[in-house]
Formats: sequence, structure tokens, C-alpha cells
Amino acid sequence: MLQQLETLDLLDISSKRTCSEIDELLDELLAPPGDARDRLYQAMRHAAIGGGKRMRPLLVLASADLFGVAHLSALRSGLAVECIHVHSLIHDDLPCMDDDDLRRGKATVHKAFDEATAVLAGDALHALAFEILADPLTHSDGAVRSTLVRDLAAAAGAAGMAGGQILDLLPEGTTDLDGVVRLQRLKTGALISWCVEAGATLGRAPDTARMNLRGYGQSVGLAFQIADDLLDCEGDEEAAGKRLRKDEAAGKVSFVSLLGPERARSQARVLVDQAKDHLRPFGKDVSLLRSIADYALARDR
Amino acid sequence: MLQQLETLDLLDISSKRTCSEIDELLDELLAPPGDARDRLYQAMRHAAIGGGKRMRPLLVLASADLFGVAHLSALRSGLAVECIHVHSLIHDDLPCMDDDDLRRGKATVHKAFDEATAVLAGDALHALAFEILADPLTHSDGAVRSTLVRDLAAAAGAAGMAGGQILDLLPEGTTDLDGVVRLQRLKTGALISWCVEAGATLGRAPDTARMNLRGYGQSVGLAFQIADDLLDCEGDEEAAGKRLRKDEAAGKVSFVSLLGPERARSQARVLVDQAKDHLRPFGKDVSLLRSIADYALARDR
Repeated sequence: MLQQLETLDLLDISSKRTCSEIDELLDELLAPPGDARDRLYQAMRHAAIGGGKRMRPLLVLASADLFGVAHLSALRSGLAVECIHVHSLIHDDLPCMDDDDLRRGKATVHKAFDEATAVLAGDALHALAFEILADPLTHSDGAVRSTLVRDLAAAAGAAGMAGGQILDLLPEGTTDLDGVVRLQRLKTGALISWCVEAGATLGRAPDTARMNLRGYGQSVGLAFQIADDLLDCEGDEEAAGKRLRKDEAAGKVSFVSLLGPERARSQARVLVDQAKDHLRPFGKDVSLLRSIADYALARDR
Repeated sequence: MLQQLETLDLLDISSKRTCSEIDELLDELLAPPGDARDRLYQAMRHAAIGGGKRMRPLLVLASADLFGVAHLSALRSGLAVECIHVHSLIHDDLPCMDDDDLRRGKATVHKAFDEATAVLAGDALHALAFEILADPLTHSDGAVRSTLVRDLAAAAGAAGMAGGQILDLLPEGTTDLDGVVRLQRLKTGALISWCVEAGATLGRAPDTARMNLRGYGQSVGLAFQIADDLLDCEGDEEAAGKRLRKDEAAGKVSFVSLLGPERARSQARVLVDQAKDHLRPFGKDVSLLRSIADYALARDR
């Protein structure tokens, strides 16, 4: 218990530092040009700055640390995947998708601005992600930058996140546990796996290291999703900063609706242990990655 | 006159070849996976396959030809920018944006499918563009691929196309000719400039060549826009395959509303001549680029 508290403290400190570094970079990159386009920049800033726990950038930083990658390389890569994540939240919240008014404790972009601005702000953050990754500031080797771009684009597109989102919109297609695992592997897992593999790409790590990180990412991704399902079912809307009880209202099956809260929670524990097993070959420098895995169990409290 | 007919024939032949090559690549890349995600893939295919004149891929192919770039490199780069273009058409046609029912003679994606699928199909094509560019099949040099990605992302994002689109949604911001030029340089010009510069990037051309191509791209981009405004004002909806008279109905200023059709047409002629002047330093191998410029004058007939 003491050990778990310590790892969560480590996570808390790392997360706070990453949040402020990410916000600083975004503040620079999204400086409004001072004309009528400011509305677009303000919408992007509204969605991207000062929100969330930046778990995806943290995963990139933690995996990059295993291979001695320069901090700025990892931070910019983490910022890129966060831009894709925020893009997906903006578009997911649109009236034609989940129709949400609240996100990260603030009005969603189409509520604070309007739908057209929300579509464009999501699109522009999507483009920004690839602009950041492909810039020589992210890595001196163009082949490394291209690999990051290609893999992130694949994780975000029809064979990844967007494919998962269409499955999520078609509830008749997902009826059992295998279906939920498949949907979540695409919808949230693909980006999370990219995060941990980005460290290996940046550090030109051997394939075995990449495989282990991929295994860790897949387990952690599903554990996070179970925690998210538990939060949707049992959590407090004010603390979560978003609308809850959505799966039930939409008649969607989830880990919790299929397994019940107790079995879902124990399944998350098994996945976190599996994730940690994948870290063994790396020796001792894995405390942040272990803390992030533990956080999946702690976040629904 | 005879000469202009000949150059338009050349354009016609090149355009037909490019259309079928682009469709062939898209047919491979967008093969439906055979599950519930097929709806997303069908929506992407509906929008991307078999439509348009593929002017952007043609511009990439024509500029790449000046530097002896391999055909597949130029074709894949052209496909990438076409994916960004189709993405922008899908999102532009949404009810919250231009609310159009017809595009390239077919139902728009949100009409043929639904709004949520249209948002995701646009997003997935946006991602596909960068996945294509960053793949080693596009160019053997990772630095070249990264430059293509970074420049295309910048041209598509808040400082380019998306920024132009927000200006277009805020008609009060654009009242005079300078404003229209600025809007169109962002909304359509940034992608067109990318197309002609992509040839220089792929062929590692000297900066002077890139500058000339940029000048050509800027002039051709504005000439195309004037032709588009003339088409919107004077064209036939059935032949155009999309709704017309939109600028007037939306109370937007355009080249035609500010200059009148005759002065707009003569301005387009000046721009086409300027575009051709930028091609002089390249010597004789510029017939396709000249034909594309001529097409800007021919397309509203």
C-alpha cells in the first residue's frame, strides 16, 4: 500500500511537470495571429491548454526515458499525440456524435464557440500533431520523424482510432466481450500503444524492447478503459468534469455492463499486473511506467 | 488558339491518366476490412474515388517532372494532397458549415451516410494523407518525407487552409479585394503552393527553382479561384456537379462581386500570364504546368 502511494506520488509530480511543459509549448504554438482567425486559435486553446492529466505525453516521456532520449524530443512527441487526442475529444463531443456539453470541467468547443469552429479546431489540431512530429526540432534523424508520423497517422486513422469510433457509433456491432476489447483496442488502444512505442522509435531501441512496450501498452490501454467504464458507471460528474452514465443511456455494452463492477475491477488488476510483467526485462528504470499502470486502478476512486 | 487547344489536350490526357492511377491506389488503400468498419471505408471511398479532375495531383506530377522525380514518389505525394483536399470538401459540406447536398455530381457524404460518419471519414482521410507521405514507398530519404509532411500539415492547418476556412465563415472579416486575396491564399492557395513545391522537395531542387514554382503556384491558385467565382456566378449546376450561386446567397464578397465578371476574367488572364512567366527559367519542359495554368481560363466555359 505504502509502495503504491509512493508510485502515485511520483506520477503526480511527473504529471504536474508535464502538464505545465505541454501548456507552455501549446501557448507558443497557438499564439493567435491577431486577426479574424483568432476565433479558431482561441477554440484550439480552449480545448488543448490547461486540461486533462496528459497521460499520453507522460507515457511517451516514460518510455523515451528507458532509451536516454532527449527530453525535448519526447516532450514534442507527447505533445503531438495529445493534439490528436484533443482533436478526437472535440469531434467526439459534437452534436452529431456524442453531443456533450461538458469536457474537462469546461464547456465543449461547439458550446463555447459553435459547431463549424469545433470541426475546424479539431482538424487544425490534427494537422498540428504531424507538423510538430515532422519538424527537425523533434529529432535530428528524418527517418525517425517519418516513422513517428506514419505510425501516429495509422493509429489515428481508419485502421485505428477513427475505425474504433465508427464501431462505437454502431452499437449493434459490439455485443460481447471480444467485441468490446476489439473496439477499445482501436478507439483508445492504438494511440496508447503509439505512445509507448514512440519512446522506442525515438531511441532506436531493439525490436524486443518495442515488443515488450507494445505488450505493456495494450494491457494498460485496456485497464484504463475498464477504469473509464467504472467511472462512467459509478463516478461523480463534477469530479470527472464530464457527463457520465453515457454507456447505459446509449444502450452500449461495456466492460462493466458485461462483467459487473467487481469482475471488471479484478480484470483491470490482472491487466495492470500483466503490464508490469512486460516491464521486467528493462530492469529498474521503470518506476514511472509502473506508476502509470497503477493509476489505472486508482483513478476511479 | 490552336496552341491553347493543344495544351488543353495534353492536360486532358494527363488528367485522365492521373485520375485512373489515383483511383487505383485509393482502391487498394481503402479496401474495406469486412466488418462493421466497412461503413467508414465506404464513406471514404464515396468521397475520394472517381471524382474531381485531380488538379492537385497533376500539379505535383508536373512539378516533380522538372526534377526527374520517380513517378511513384510524385503520384503518392499527389494522392496525399488529394486526401487532404477531399477531407476539406467533406467537412466543408457539413450542415454546420456550407450545408451542401451535392458534390462532384453525387450526394455529399453526410447525405449518403450521416453526419457522424462524414466527420470521421474526413478525419480518416486527413490521417491517411500523412501516413502515405511518411511511408518509405513515397521517397527513400526520411528527411524528404518529413519535409513533405511538415509543409503539408502547415498548409492544411490553422496557418493555412483551416485558417482560410474560418475567415470564410466570418463574412464580416472580408470586405475588400485584399481581404479576398488573403482568404483565398490561405483557403485554397496554401495547398496549391504545396503541390508545386512538393516537386522541388522530392527532387531536392535548388531554392531558386522552388521560389519560381511558389510564384507560379500563387498566381495559378488565385486564377483558379477567380474561375471558381465565375463558375459560381455564371455556371450550370448540372455540369458543375455542385450547388452554385452560393457566394451571393451567403452575402459573401468574391472576386466577381468586387470586380464584376469582365474585370475578374481579365484579372485571371493577367495571373495566368504571370504564372507562365515564373516558368521561363525552367526552359522547355513546362508544357503541362502551362496547360494547367491555361485551364484556369477555360474551366468556366
